[in-house]
Amino acid sequence: MAVQDDFRNQLETFPNQFPHRDYVIEIVCPEFTSVCPKTGQPDFGTLRITYTPDEKCVELKSLKLYLQRFRNEGIFYEHVTNRILDDLVAVLSPRSLQLVADFSPRGGITTRVTVQYREAR
Amino acid sequence: MAVQDDFRNQLETFPNQFPHRDYVIEIVCPEFTSVCPKTGQPDFGTLRITYTPDEKCVELKSLKLYLQRFRNEGIFYEHVTNRILDDLVAVLSPRSLQLVADFSPRGGITTRVTVQYREAR
Amino acid sequence: MAVQDDFRNQLETFPNQFPHRDYVIEIVCPEFTSVCPKTGQPDFGTLRITYTPDEKCVELKSLKLYLQRFRNEGIFYEHVTNRILDDLVAVLSPRSLQLVADFSPRGGITTRVTVQYREAR
Amino acid sequence: MAVQDDFRNQLETFPNQFPHRDYVIEIVCPEFTSVCPKTGQPDFGTLRITYTPDEKCVELKSLKLYLQRFRNEGIFYEHVTNRILDDLVAVLSPRSLQLVADFSPRGGITTRVTVQYREAR
Amino acid sequence: MAVQDDFRNQLETFPNQFPHRDYVIEIVCPEFTSVCPKTGQPDFGTLRITYTPDEKCVELKSLKLYLQRFRNEGIFYEHVTNRILDDLVAVLSPRSLQLVADFSPRGGITTRVTVQYREAR
Amino acid sequence: MAVQDDFRNQLETFPNQFPHRDYVIEIVCPEFTSVCPKTGQPDFGTLRITYTPDEKCVELKSLKLYLQRFRNEGIFYEHVTNRILDDLVAVLSPRSLQLVADFSPRGGITTRVTVQYREAR
Amino acid sequence: MAVQDDFRNQLETFPNQFPHRDYVIEIVCPEFTSVCPKTGQPDFGTLRITYTPDEKCVELKSLKLYLQRFRNEGIFYEHVTNRILDDLVAVLSPRSLQLVADFSPRGGITTRVTVQYREAR
Amino acid sequence: MAVQDDFRNQLETFPNQFPHRDYVIEIVCPEFTSVCPKTGQPDFGTLRITYTPDEKCVELKSLKLYLQRFRNEGIFYEHVTNRILDDLVAVLSPRSLQLVADFSPRGGITTRVTVQYREAR
Amino acid sequence: MAVQDDFRNQLETFPNQFPHRDYVIEIVCPEFTSVCPKTGQPDFGTLRITYTPDEKCVELKSLKLYLQRFRNEGIFYEHVTNRILDDLVAVLSPRSLQLVADFSPRGGITTRVTVQYREAR
Amino acid sequence: MAVQDDFRNQLETFPNQFPHRDYVIEIVCPEFTSVCPKTGQPDFGTLRITYTPDEKCVELKSLKLYLQRFRNEGIFYEHVTNRILDDLVAVLSPRSLQLVADFSPRGGITTRVTVQYREAR
Repeated sequence: MAVQDDFRNQLETFPNQFPHRDYVIEIVCPEFTSVCPKTGQPDFGTLRITYTPDEKCVELKSLKLYLQRFRNEGIFYEHVTNRILDDLVAVLSPRSLQLVADFSPRGGITTRVTVQYREAR
Repeated sequence: MAVQDDFRNQLETFPNQFPHRDYVIEIVCPEFTSVCPKTGQPDFGTLRITYTPDEKCVELKSLKLYLQRFRNEGIFYEHVTNRILDDLVAVLSPRSLQLVADFSPRGGITTRVTVQYREAR
Repeated sequence: MAVQDDFRNQLETFPNQFPHRDYVIEIVCPEFTSVCPKTGQPDFGTLRITYTPDEKCVELKSLKLYLQRFRNEGIFYEHVTNRILDDLVAVLSPRSLQLVADFSPRGGITTRVTVQYREAR
Repeated sequence: MAVQDDFRNQLETFPNQFPHRDYVIEIVCPEFTSVCPKTGQPDFGTLRITYTPDEKCVELKSLKLYLQRFRNEGIFYEHVTNRILDDLVAVLSPRSLQLVADFSPRGGITTRVTVQYREAR
Repeated sequence: MAVQDDFRNQLETFPNQFPHRDYVIEIVCPEFTSVCPKTGQPDFGTLRITYTPDEKCVELKSLKLYLQRFRNEGIFYEHVTNRILDDLVAVLSPRSLQLVADFSPRGGITTRVTVQYREAR
Repeated sequence: MAVQDDFRNQLETFPNQFPHRDYVIEIVCPEFTSVCPKTGQPDFGTLRITYTPDEKCVELKSLKLYLQRFRNEGIFYEHVTNRILDDLVAVLSPRSLQLVADFSPRGGITTRVTVQYREAR
Repeated sequence: MAVQDDFRNQLETFPNQFPHRDYVIEIVCPEFTSVCPKTGQPDFGTLRITYTPDEKCVELKSLKLYLQRFRNEGIFYEHVTNRILDDLVAVLSPRSLQLVADFSPRGGITTRVTVQYREAR
Repeated sequence: MAVQDDFRNQLETFPNQFPHRDYVIEIVCPEFTSVCPKTGQPDFGTLRITYTPDEKCVELKSLKLYLQRFRNEGIFYEHVTNRILDDLVAVLSPRSLQLVADFSPRGGITTRVTVQYREAR
Repeated sequence: MAVQDDFRNQLETFPNQFPHRDYVIEIVCPEFTSVCPKTGQPDFGTLRITYTPDEKCVELKSLKLYLQRFRNEGIFYEHVTNRILDDLVAVLSPRSLQLVADFSPRGGITTRVTVQYREAR
Repeated sequence: MAVQDDFRNQLETFPNQFPHRDYVIEIVCPEFTSVCPKTGQPDFGTLRITYTPDEKCVELKSLKLYLQRFRNEGIFYEHVTNRILDDLVAVLSPRSLQLVADFSPRGGITTRVTVQYREAR
């Protein structure tokens, strides 16, 4: 958990100057890479983030550096997808956020994980 | 704000001769460019504007010149999209207006921002 | 207005021999050209007309000649689209009619105007 | 009208052996040709017939010969489409029938006519 | 009818080991051929069978041999489609079954026949 | 049945660290192969698994090894699809799971089998 | 022969104002139709004419009317292609001329005929 | 001829600053329109100009205005293509120049004219 | 010229560690923009550079910054393409280098300039 | 150099049992990643290796592990491509070998490096 918070600290935000309006930001990151916790082999994937900001937007260069922190991290597809969602939600407090992660074939098998967050009202 | 109004003044309109009818105007501008406020590097994007006019239509050459004013302006994707929406709404008082902005990849990351306005009744 | 009526007179109709039936006629005209009232430069576009006739159908050769009358006419995209709709509605009294006009890029900007008419009941 | 009946006589049917079941027959005829009643020039089109038979199906070779009868017939697009619908409905008494006719460009203008019949209940 | 039963006898089934579950089996047969009863010429088509089994599944090799029996059979498109549906329904007693048959052009005319069966409840 | 349990034992799971959230995992396995029980010939197919985990996720390498166990197994398409669904449901107790299996052409015939499971509430 | 000359008379030419230059004119006619001399059935095809003019160019409207004369003419594919080549060569005296004719499928069979003329030196 | 020179005067050039190098400039003009000298109807086409400059390059805005002069000019496809080639060669004295003109269908007939110039050595 | 050298100074190189081998580097820059010297309006284009290095390779970030220097520079398409070629050749002394520049439509006209350099032997 | 040899040692080979025959092996590696020596940011690319073996073939798992060694290595595109070619040539002594490396866009710029080796005779 301590390690997880450390990753999260990489994420920077800037104030949303238009919080009175619901609008949608979609971000595609085709160069995500982490390491399989079982085999130690690198994994590759494409992340698609879609969110409606509240008071904060994620700064894109910090998002790039945050995602690079997973480069040598051993973690399952299912967990890394949920963890990135949790980090983005913790830092942005968005109105809603969806994360779709497509991972490259391993042993001939391809995987997609889809996770969603919606602000409690 | 003073600067923002100055940009907005570039926009010209002409009277909508058919205000008794709801109809739809879609405008695609694939040559939008501004500057990243963080890195000073140029950004590139495609804007898609869809609106139903009320009393005024935007004159297209003035729209081109208005968008060119952002050429050397440092501004975040999220804010420039909202700001253009605000300027168009202020100048046109349209019945509705949507703006979808697709920005070119930076650091391997691609972004789309979607903003909508609908006239209060 | 006098001029407008003059254009409209070019349109010929023939009696719809099947007025007891609602059916749909779609016409695509990819060779429309008029003149920009601001710059004096020629504009080019594709018109798509979709209508349900009542007592009259538009004769296609007369439609071609009617559209050619705009060849040297200075008129905004938004207005020419509405004006053609008005002329077709005046001459045909159709049950419904839609006109979608796609104009070629000017200064990097592409425009589509969509107008609809539906018979009052 | 006498002439029209004469055309219609070309259409042959065979008994639908499965009238207890609603099913759909789609027929595409890309080689339809008739003559423009205004210019005397040949027109070319593709007909798409979709119907649910009741007691009778149209025999395809007779359909081909029936359509060939329009080869030297002067008739508007809108009327020939409706007339073929009427002939098929008269001969087949189908449960429903749709006819979509796409005609080749003339003077740069392309036309589609869509007609539908549904059995009264 | 005796002949028809004879064809049907070619179809073999095996017990569905999962009858407690509704699931869907789709089968595509692009190599169907029969003979036109009017001209004696060969016809070619693609059959698409979609069904939910009840107690029995059709064995695919027997299906292939069954369909080959139509190779020298003179039969209309509309009837062969319905007859295959009837045979499959008689042998399988499925919960539902759809058959879509696409036939190659003859005299410039292409035909599709769509037939559906749903178990009475 | 004893044999079937033996296959199922190959499947390994890891704890879902995010069970408080409904999310979706899609897995595509384009290299499935088994043997036709009738002809002894190899069959090839693509499996698409979509599920919402509860307390457990399937470990992908064990899934690969599990699917490889069918390599020399004589089994009908319809049954192998249902059996894999049953094994995954038994081992994972997912909230929901769908399996779509597309099999390569045999004798010119292509087959797809679709099976679904939803947790009783 | 008398009849053939009569067809040829339909072709009009205009003086080539640039005879000092070798250049290429390509003409595509997708609406050619004649009648099969064996079955009496209409044939459909696309003609592609490519020529280098000498003193004369073919006037396109007269070419269209010339080709329409074959509408009800019974003639084999191979013969009509050669005859059109002969007529064009006789009327134009071109430096070279090629004619490629693609005919629609009949009984599942498609045909292309290619004919060439080159001026003797 | 006097008129032709007048058109040609519209073309402006600027000095090629790199005449020591052979290089290629390709220009595509999809909005060319003139008038048929036979029917008085407008024609539409796409011009593709490819040239290697010597001492002069054509200024593109003047090229656009030059081509617009044909808007209401009655002239055959074959002649307008050669005439534009002659005008460009006269004004630019290029090392080589090719012009390919594709005209829209008229009466179902499409035409392409290809003309080439190469500097005498 | 003084200004041109200044631009050129932005280009950085690194030593080619494999000069004993002829190999090919292709670089695509879809975000080039400069200003029209005639109208003052921005131009947009895609540059494709293909070269075989000798002793030096161009560093890509410096190339990006070099190209950005043209952002507010008034220069013709034909000249900017040649000038970039000259700058790259001066700085890299490559064995060969080709530059293809595709510019966006202006007034309906699209332009491509192709320039090549080959080392004298 | 010491480090380079160390990487190369990761590559394993197996004897080519068919050295009497010239044949071609193509290997595509879409998951190559290294680090930019200038910015420290990760780079991503696809490698395409095509070779004709002599006495040895490269073992694919060892190739994968060899390529993974570059994961945290700072090296220019041009050099890493040449270095991998050198390593493969040193270990395999192939008759010929080509390596094409496509790198993802950075700052809007995409790069491909193509290197070839051919055995001296």
